[in-house]
Parts: sequence; C-alpha cells; structure tokens
Amino acid sequence: MEVPTALEELFKYIDKNTSRYIETLREAVAIRSVSSLEECREETCKMVNWTAGHLRKLGVEVCLKEIGTQVFPSGNEVKFPPVLLGTLGNDPKKKTICIYGHLDVQPALKDDGWNTEPFEMAECDGRLYGRGAADDKGPVLACIQAIEAFQAVHVELPVNIKILFEAMEECGSLGLEGLVTSEKDSFFKDVDYICICDGSWLGKDTPCIVYGLRGCCFFRLTVECASQDLHSGVHGGMVHEAMADLTYLLSSLTDKDGRLLITDIYNSVPPLHAGEQDIYTNIDFDTSVYGNDIGAVKLLRQDKADLLLNGWRYPSLSIHGIEGAHGEFGLKCVIPGKVTGKFSIRIVENQSPEEVKKLVTDYLTKKWQERGSATRIMVTMTASALPWHEDPHHPHYLATQKATKYIYKKDGDLIRAGGTMPIITTLKKITGKNIINVALSAGDDNIHAQNEKIDKNNYISGTKFMAAYLYEVSRIEK
Amino acid sequence: MEVPTALEELFKYIDKNTSRYIETLREAVAIRSVSSLEECREETCKMVNWTAGHLRKLGVEVCLKEIGTQVFPSGNEVKFPPVLLGTLGNDPKKKTICIYGHLDVQPALKDDGWNTEPFEMAECDGRLYGRGAADDKGPVLACIQAIEAFQAVHVELPVNIKILFEAMEECGSLGLEGLVTSEKDSFFKDVDYICICDGSWLGKDTPCIVYGLRGCCFFRLTVECASQDLHSGVHGGMVHEAMADLTYLLSSLTDKDGRLLITDIYNSVPPLHAGEQDIYTNIDFDTSVYGNDIGAVKLLRQDKADLLLNGWRYPSLSIHGIEGAHGEFGLKCVIPGKVTGKFSIRIVENQSPEEVKKLVTDYLTKKWQERGSATRIMVTMTASALPWHEDPHHPHYLATQKATKYIYKKDGDLIRAGGTMPIITTLKKITGKNIINVALSAGDDNIHAQNEKIDKNNYISGTKFMAAYLYEVSRIEK
Repeated sequence: MEVPTALEELFKYIDKNTSRYIETLREAVAIRSVSSLEECREETCKMVNWTAGHLRKLGVEVCLKEIGTQVFPSGNEVKFPPVLLGTLGNDPKKKTICIYGHLDVQPALKDDGWNTEPFEMAECDGRLYGRGAADDKGPVLACIQAIEAFQAVHVELPVNIKILFEAMEECGSLGLEGLVTSEKDSFFKDVDYICICDGSWLGKDTPCIVYGLRGCCFFRLTVECASQDLHSGVHGGMVHEAMADLTYLLSSLTDKDGRLLITDIYNSVPPLHAGEQDIYTNIDFDTSVYGNDIGAVKLLRQDKADLLLNGWRYPSLSIHGIEGAHGEFGLKCVIPGKVTGKFSIRIVENQSPEEVKKLVTDYLTKKWQERGSATRIMVTMTASALPWHEDPHHPHYLATQKATKYIYKKDGDLIRAGGTMPIITTLKKITGKNIINVALSAGDDNIHAQNEKIDKNNYISGTKFMAAYLYEVSRIEK
Repeated sequence: MEVPTALEELFKYIDKNTSRYIETLREAVAIRSVSSLEECREETCKMVNWTAGHLRKLGVEVCLKEIGTQVFPSGNEVKFPPVLLGTLGNDPKKKTICIYGHLDVQPALKDDGWNTEPFEMAECDGRLYGRGAADDKGPVLACIQAIEAFQAVHVELPVNIKILFEAMEECGSLGLEGLVTSEKDSFFKDVDYICICDGSWLGKDTPCIVYGLRGCCFFRLTVECASQDLHSGVHGGMVHEAMADLTYLLSSLTDKDGRLLITDIYNSVPPLHAGEQDIYTNIDFDTSVYGNDIGAVKLLRQDKADLLLNGWRYPSLSIHGIEGAHGEFGLKCVIPGKVTGKFSIRIVENQSPEEVKKLVTDYLTKKWQERGSATRIMVTMTASALPWHEDPHHPHYLATQKATKYIYKKDGDLIRAGGTMPIITTLKKITGKNIINVALSAGDDNIHAQNEKIDKNNYISGTKFMAAYLYEVSRIEK
C-alpha cells in the first residue's frame, strides 16, 4: 500500500527527531506520577502541568479541570490531580477526534526487582526502560509528537483535536466520570470518534486494535482479630488470628486451575457464537513465546484459542496482596490485628458489577458462616468498571487499519483484551460515539510489572502511526 | 518484709534521678536500631556504641565483639552490629552475675497506626511511648542505672558483673551463638548465674519471673507462577496464580480455632503432670482484662488455665505476612509472580526444630501434591530456637523473689511464657548455669506492636529492682 506524500514528509521529520523524542520521554518517566500514593500526588499533578506546557506550545487551548478530592489512609483529604482537556481547531468542515491517554503510572520500587531505577529512564539495546515508558507516557507523547510533526512540516492538520488526558487511570479513573458527564454538551459536543491510546500488543510483530475489553470489580476483604498487632510469641495460641481466616477465605475464591469457585458468576457469561472460536485461532499469537516472555511456570490452557478465550471472553480472579500484614523482607514475630485481602474479578459483556458484588458478598458470607470463626470480617467492592465492545467492521476501524498498514506493512489484529478501561465505558455511555483502542507498545513491555520498557522502534513507529491515523480518519466518508 | 538500709539509700537516689533516667531513655529510643533493616544497620551499631559509652563511664571494661556478616536482599554483605561484652569487678569472693539485654528493636512506622512518631519518645499520663521503650531499651537502662546507683551512693557493688548486650535479638540473635561458644572459657568462665532482662509481665500489677519459654521455628513458603509480576487484566485467566496457591497452603496450616492441622506436631508435647493445671489457675491473670487490653475480638479459650496452657505449654502457629505481593495501601492490578508466606511455629519442651521442620515440609509437600497445581513451591526453615525451662525452686529464683518483694511488696508470679529467646537456650547449653528471666515492663506495653510504651513507674521500679536483685543474689549461700 502506497503511503500518501503528505505522510511521507511527516515520517521523515519524525525519524529525524528521534533523539529529541527520547529525551522528552526521559523527562516524563522521571516524574513520579504514581496516582495511588499520597506522597506522589504532587508529582502526579506536576506531570499534568508538564504535559499541558507541551500542548500549549502547539497552540492547544488547555483547560485543567479540578475533579474533587479523596481521603488517603493517613486521614488527609487531598485533591485529585486535574484532568487535562485540550482543544486544537474547530473547523466545522473537519472531523473532530478525541484522543485519550493517561499520565499516571503504577507504583514501582527498585527493590521490587527492577534492574535499573524505575524513574530514571535507561536505554539498552534499543529499549527504553522506565515506569510509564509504555503505560502510558510513551503513547501519550507519540500523540503529541504526531500533532507537532504536522505543524513542523506545514501540513494542515486534517482534523480538529480534542485531548482528554487524566492522571487517575491506575486507580480506576476516579473522579473522571462526573467530568465527562458534565462536559457532554460542551467539550464532547462535536466529537466524531474517540481514540484510546493505551495498552499493548499481544506479541512483538503485529499491531493490535482492540474492540472489546473486560470490566473489573475490585474487592477488599478485611478480617480483624484484635485492635492492634500482637507479638506472636507472647499471644500465639491465645487469640484467633486474622491471617488464618483471611487466607482461608481467599483460598476459597478459586480452584487450582484459576476457575472461580463462586460458580454462579459464570451463569451470565454469553455463550460463544457460531465461528467465534475461529477468530481466536487466527490471531497472531504464540502461546509458547507468550509463556516464555512472561516467565510463566505454566499457562492455564495449552491451546491458543482456549487460552485467549479464557483471558478475554471469560471472567478471572486475581489476588493482589494483603494490607496490614508483614509484607517487607525480614522476620517480624507479629500476629497482624487487622488484615485486608485485595482481589479483583474481571467481568465480561452482559455482566454487571452489582450482580458480581452480590455474588461475592453472599459467597464469602456463606463461607464465613460455614467456618464459624470468631474474627470479624467485612467485604467491600471499592471500584468497578463495565466491560466494553464495538463492531470491528465500523468505518473508524477500517480507517485505522489503513494507517496500520502504512506503518507496520500489515493488517493489525482485531482483538479483545483482558484488561479494563473504565474511561471507555464512561465515554461510550455518555457520548455514544464509536471508540477504538489502539496500542502502540509491544507485548513484552511489562506494563504494571518490573522492568517496564518501550522499544525505541515502537515509540517512533507509534508517533508515525498516530499521524497516519489522524490523516486516515479525516478521510472517512460520513 | 523490711528493706535493707543499703538498698533504702539506693532507692532514694534512684527516685531523685527519675528525670535524668527518662531523658536517657529518650536518647536511646531516638536511635533507630531496627536490626532487620539494612538501612538501619548504622543506627543499630550506633546504639551499641552509645551504650558502651554509658558503661565505660561506670568503669565497665567494654569489649565490642565483631560476629561476622549477613547478606541483605539488596545483595549487599553487611557486618552484624557488634556484641557488647562488659566486665565490672573480678573479686573471687563475690558471685559473678551475667546480665543479658538487647539493644535492637522491631520495625515501626508511624503509618502502621502509631499515635506518635515511634522513634521520638512521647510522655503522656506517666507513660513513655516509643519503639524499644519496653523491649528492651528501658530494661537495659534499668540495669545500667542500678549499677550506677551503687557507685553514686558509695555502696560497694556486692557482685562481679558481666554484661552481654546484643543488637540482633529481633532477628533471632543471629551470630551470637558462635561468640558465646568461643567465650565459654573466658568471658563466661566465672559466671555463677545469668539474668535475662527482657520481656513483660502478664498484667499490670504482679511482676513475673519466667522459668520457661517456648522455642520457635520460622518458615518461608515461596510460590512462583511467573518470573515477574503481571498485569491482572492482561494476563488474568492465562496463568496459574501464585497467590491462589499460597493462600491455599497457608490456610491448610491451622483450623479456625488455631489448632495446627499438622497434627503430628502434638505427638511430642509432654503430657501435663499431676497438679500442673492448678499452677496456671493460681496465676494473677484476668482473661477479660487481657482480652480488652489487646483488643481481641475473642480469645481462643475462655478459661484462664486453658488459655495460659494454650499460650505457654502447647505449640502455636502464626502467619506473619506475605512478601512479594501488593501490601501497601491502594489498588494495584497485579498478579504477583513470586510470593513468600512467612509463618512461625512456637514449640515446647521435648520438641526439636529438626523434627518440626520435617513435619512442616512433609505436610506442605503432601498438601501440594494433593492440589496438583502447576506453580513451583519451596519451603525453608530460616531460623529456629529451642524451648527452655528451669526449676523455679532454685536458690537463684528464691533470691529474686526476695528482691521482688522489696520493690513490689508481693511475690512475683513464677510463670512460663509463650515467647522465645534463642540466647537463653544458647547460654544454657554452653554455660550450664542457672538462668532467670526477669521482666520489668507491664503486660499492656505493646511490645512488637504499635504504641509500645513503658510506664514511668515500671521504669523506675525496674531500676530499683535490678539493684535489689544484685544485692540479694550476692547473698545466696553456695
């Protein structure tokens, strides 16, 4: 497929500016925008302001929207980082594209097992290591750099742009739904299509275009045996212990093969439609490469389609950790007084968080009654997000495929994904527009894990892709 | 019982110096001698040197013994803090008393739920709050101040003193056994009795003299599902999860009433001898006061003797926490790749760590085979200590009771305790001498927990008690 001349020129400019783009990413990674930590809130806000500065240089009209406050465990009430709304162009003859990305990152400590300092970008063999390099600072910068490239080579931007960058995504996009709702008839009024620029490919070679995501329900299960931590020598054998009861309850959630033991959750999963299994069979995905990349001891399913279905099309439950117990290295002879198990359940189309909350609460309450222990328990669903899916034959998807071919010389795989983006559900519900989720980072980029990275190639191709995407969506016939 | 004149004078001096003693304790608390943390190793060594300075002022000949190195998880090999050996007096006509205490403390963070900064001593209503105030910096200072009081009022110290202060007690007295062994025929040569000054009373009114302790075996149970942490949205449903298997195994260790499900461990517990239950019935201990003090939701046994027997005379198992999972506050959509459950089993007389290690390893291996999961597991016993007990009718114990009566106007309760002091076993094994464990802090002092404190009264009475103890043991007829 021949690349249009206008894009050729843009691509050359992008190639020439590679070093500068890398330095910009280095600056972004150095800003510790961990949205879940109170001590990083200032840095998270700084990341929003830093990004606003870059956009203003391109003539984007930026508005930083306050979205309220949250109370941290310290008892401090702290403002959420503002949401960045940006507007560039309002030509009624052009289509209006809303681009979404996020500026916050997951926690990361060198001691978690990073080879380098997570907030100091390290370049090695064409890979750019650092927390947020792939999720989602690199992709966000690719969008900004694509816009800048149009301006630099004096090619008129063929679309109006609406930018929606938030910094609470890693905490479930807290506070964002209200803003989107209130901006429905103003900021979002003329939007034609929405592009979510986040996530990663399945593998390392074929780009992925996502048309469906699972939803998620986050739970906290608290067990209390005493109002304080106790010395396990002095008090062991004298009190009921919260950790014994918590591990009992957590272990009752799934079986050894990852199947939820709250079996009623499977009742609302839609059955596979005719031929659906084949779609999964044709996706460019190698189970053994995947297993090796993540260093899995063993995958839950050995067949490719079975494995992908299990990860995308069925619910799953993961236990993330326990608050209030001794999680650091070393010995501590403690009976933790109050411990909270944190787990989440990914849900699929047709399933609602309310239904899952009830099933989980009822199940744990029943298990608890069966055990008959004397400790106190509390189950809460602290956050949730609906699943999402689109028709992958929509013109917006076809235009995106064209852009994909220019850059990657092949069709992207149209896939579902196992993850969740609450913002997609919200945007869909409120704007009703067609949404696409494009991923720019590779499948081995370790997002949310140790040694997160983005390949230099993917970062630069992603910048070109975003330019090509804007070009192609401008040409969709209404 | 009339207090001897020499002691009367000492007691007056001690009362007059209360404010100074409190300031000294404040200085000690401010030194973050957390032995389990690499970043506190310098402060831990500083605590040893600070104490050495105080002892040298009293004419104690101090020797700081290096005991080797340890490798922290960072990979750094770091020296243990030195052991402080002190000698004061070598009159062959006097008895020689070895006093043991420890200078290191448990970890503590304000965020754990402390009302004040744990390393800044806070005085409130006659209570001195701070990490180490009761365990064991207050008691250690009581010993030093007792010696100083003899000198200040010009009463000849009636015994030779050998001081053994270590700073790795909270990590299982790592490195100490080798030193004690090598000093058997030198430092410990002329020791008649050993006094372990550590631990706390059962309640708030009656002092306790401990003649028996449980031993302890520390275990690490590691489960690995992947070589790295994984995003639970992207990978949930695709891999076996380590946390599911770890909680399953941890929950298989005890039942809801704290009974070990590794039932063979009970086979080697000695049966109660005739009348043994009565001893426990007569101890000054109120189960409901105890339950309230620790804020227990419910105690494991409602009868006093049953409860004390369960905590002192039978094994117990506590799960301390999980390394490698998300233990901090907040959401993290993670499938931890490798997690380690930390638990310990308190063992009683007749039981050996080797026997317990084999039973635990065999049990977990069997449970693991039954489950048939695909993750990898590893069980290790990382530290252990033998149980200890003495005959509470020994003259050393009778002399100590006399000192108790001078200060507290009543007999101390002769008790066992649920905790463990590896150093006692080591000292017993190597020196063969009679050992007593005197506690100076009250039962509500929260040792190892949030808001640790020592009551000003107990701190000062403890100083007097140590003076009276030295006086009375000097009078034991050989």
